[in-house]
Amino acid sequence: MTELLLREDAGGIATLTMNAPERLNALSDAMLGALKAEFTRLERDRDTRVVILKGNGKAFCAGHDLKEMQAGRQAEDKGRAYFADLFARCTEVMQLIPALPQPVIAEVHGIATAAGCQLVASCDMAIAAEGTRFGVNGVNIGLFCSTPMVALSRNVPRKVAFEMLTTGQFIDTTRAVEVGLINRAVPTQALAAETRALAETVAAKLSAAVKIGKRAFYDQIEMTRAGAYDHAAQVMVENMLWRDTEEGINAFIEKRKPDWA
Amino acid sequence: MTELLLREDAGGIATLTMNAPERLNALSDAMLGALKAEFTRLERDRDTRVVILKGNGKAFCAGHDLKEMQAGRQAEDKGRAYFADLFARCTEVMQLIPALPQPVIAEVHGIATAAGCQLVASCDMAIAAEGTRFGVNGVNIGLFCSTPMVALSRNVPRKVAFEMLTTGQFIDTTRAVEVGLINRAVPTQALAAETRALAETVAAKLSAAVKIGKRAFYDQIEMTRAGAYDHAAQVMVENMLWRDTEEGINAFIEKRKPDWA
Amino acid sequence: MTELLLREDAGGIATLTMNAPERLNALSDAMLGALKAEFTRLERDRDTRVVILKGNGKAFCAGHDLKEMQAGRQAEDKGRAYFADLFARCTEVMQLIPALPQPVIAEVHGIATAAGCQLVASCDMAIAAEGTRFGVNGVNIGLFCSTPMVALSRNVPRKVAFEMLTTGQFIDTTRAVEVGLINRAVPTQALAAETRALAETVAAKLSAAVKIGKRAFYDQIEMTRAGAYDHAAQVMVENMLWRDTEEGINAFIEKRKPDWA
Repeated sequence: MTELLLREDAGGIATLTMNAPERLNALSDAMLGALKAEFTRLERDRDTRVVILKGNGKAFCAGHDLKEMQAGRQAEDKGRAYFADLFARCTEVMQLIPALPQPVIAEVHGIATAAGCQLVASCDMAIAAEGTRFGVNGVNIGLFCSTPMVALSRNVPRKVAFEMLTTGQFIDTTRAVEVGLINRAVPTQALAAETRALAETVAAKLSAAVKIGKRAFYDQIEMTRAGAYDHAAQVMVENMLWRDTEEGINAFIEKRKPDWA
Repeated sequence: MTELLLREDAGGIATLTMNAPERLNALSDAMLGALKAEFTRLERDRDTRVVILKGNGKAFCAGHDLKEMQAGRQAEDKGRAYFADLFARCTEVMQLIPALPQPVIAEVHGIATAAGCQLVASCDMAIAAEGTRFGVNGVNIGLFCSTPMVALSRNVPRKVAFEMLTTGQFIDTTRAVEVGLINRAVPTQALAAETRALAETVAAKLSAAVKIGKRAFYDQIEMTRAGAYDHAAQVMVENMLWRDTEEGINAFIEKRKPDWA
Repeated sequence: MTELLLREDAGGIATLTMNAPERLNALSDAMLGALKAEFTRLERDRDTRVVILKGNGKAFCAGHDLKEMQAGRQAEDKGRAYFADLFARCTEVMQLIPALPQPVIAEVHGIATAAGCQLVASCDMAIAAEGTRFGVNGVNIGLFCSTPMVALSRNVPRKVAFEMLTTGQFIDTTRAVEVGLINRAVPTQALAAETRALAETVAAKLSAAVKIGKRAFYDQIEMTRAGAYDHAAQVMVENMLWRDTEEGINAFIEKRKPDWA
């Protein structure tokens, strides 16, 4: 049996590869389960500093597994309980990404549609191969992308999100960069190296600082400005009191590399 | 007597045309009343799937009717009660747009200033003729565009909004696209066709899905992310249980057109 | 003894110049104190209509004074109380900018890093010399820019902010304009004139309208849309009832300059 989600570890970077290429890495029950299991493992994984999320085959991810969803209708309640559980699980997986201590970078190619586009929006950063297309096109089949909308509308301007959601039309990588859905696009042959370079840049930082910062990022962004400042100021004080931060600042003043063992 | 607000219906698309060209479609008491009446009618109109809002003459809309406002000062209270009522009515009309079940597309040309710019910002999507100028220029006459600011600052980055509001200067269509105030600009001669094409694209979707999605869009955008996901997940479950959505997904799997009668 | 913060007044415009060029205008205790004192004075200053904030020497501002911070560790509590006080003072200074009645324009050149980048993000508007570099690079020395993040993440899209914060990499002025961190970039030799021109444009408006509008801008931006409209509508009514606004509107109708004495 092929593994649905592959994991490779090197240099403090965990690369998760969705591996259902024949289904365009659909977020089936099994794929959601595999993602949840791996994210849960990463939450407690002190050796991993950065996570890359990518997909095998022609696409990053084409969203939910529609055949599996239709099969859920066989139940006595026409699938209500199954659908409620499915969207709860999917929503949990999406929210595990900002909740992880490690930054998660989406390495995107081919297409990222519906919940696949939501995955991109949910990652902390994203790099895409030129030619990738992004869409929240559930509306084309009568299923509005309401949950992907939550992540999308927190990444891009309102009118852009609204048009994507109600027309189902794709945007290309140039537009995706302009509107803030991804950080940048590179030629396909440079995608892996570019993503790796970004991951290595982040992995080379003091890991505790990145982790306390990532948590504070998502905590403060939903507060009022005054509340956010109160919170962030406390985080700064804790951060300042670490021995490694003392060493980092000393090294900077002395124009040498910090000794972070 | 000329009608202030024309309405044409074709193919499930209602086109509302502000028709006071000699006053640059000013939002007079009568125009606000006409817009409110039409929006209220549209709220219960099950045949209309998309709304286009445009203006006759040289401009989309130049904001409030200043002569009428000045006349309001004749009252014993110097106009306080009239102004409070005026801004309450105007604010209600602006908020009826996101509250409508149908997506509303602004078809913009000439100028969109002050409350006219607010109208553009309040619409779900906007297409403009190249050469259109957008401004919140009340500050030039001593009346800061405080209510237009509410819509504008939810569309564009803070520093962009602040500069427009305090300088009163116009931005052109290139900048308006960049900052998210409009979806795109097209040559004047293509404006009607392009807006119509966008409206037809949306009108061809399953109307119930577009409606539940539009409502969820504005509901979730003011929630925390966790609250937004709880809400959107419930919306997805309802949407999945519709017969037309079942048909839409089956049609997609079977590579045929959905039979939405 | 050289003054840390210079002030020049001309035409209703106060120009504050941070003047510690040998330390890249670091936000030392003394500099924060000088900024706080000047901002507090400006709060009650009825003659000043616009504020420009700039820096002498090679840089706008390079953030906190790291040597001073390290010295704070000598205390018995390893600096905890000092750091808590420091970030409280810094955070207060940053929030005084949006709280000032006058618009504040950052005139930026060289580099704006860490709390220096936060200063730019905290100003109402910003113009930069081409070639200026912006970064929140505390992560490079193990101190995540958590407080700068509060201002930055309210200016630019999430993925852009996240990348800047976790990589410590600089962005240039082209990117800074694209993402909304600054209003525009101009050649170095044009920087002072361009900033002055913007300040003069705003200073020529009815000052009371700019002030009521600036306050309403930051008040409404943290409210729900409905709450924001209620608030802004009240502000509009007050603004309409001013004699100068009556005159401003009359002047516009009569196609003459308003007589605002």
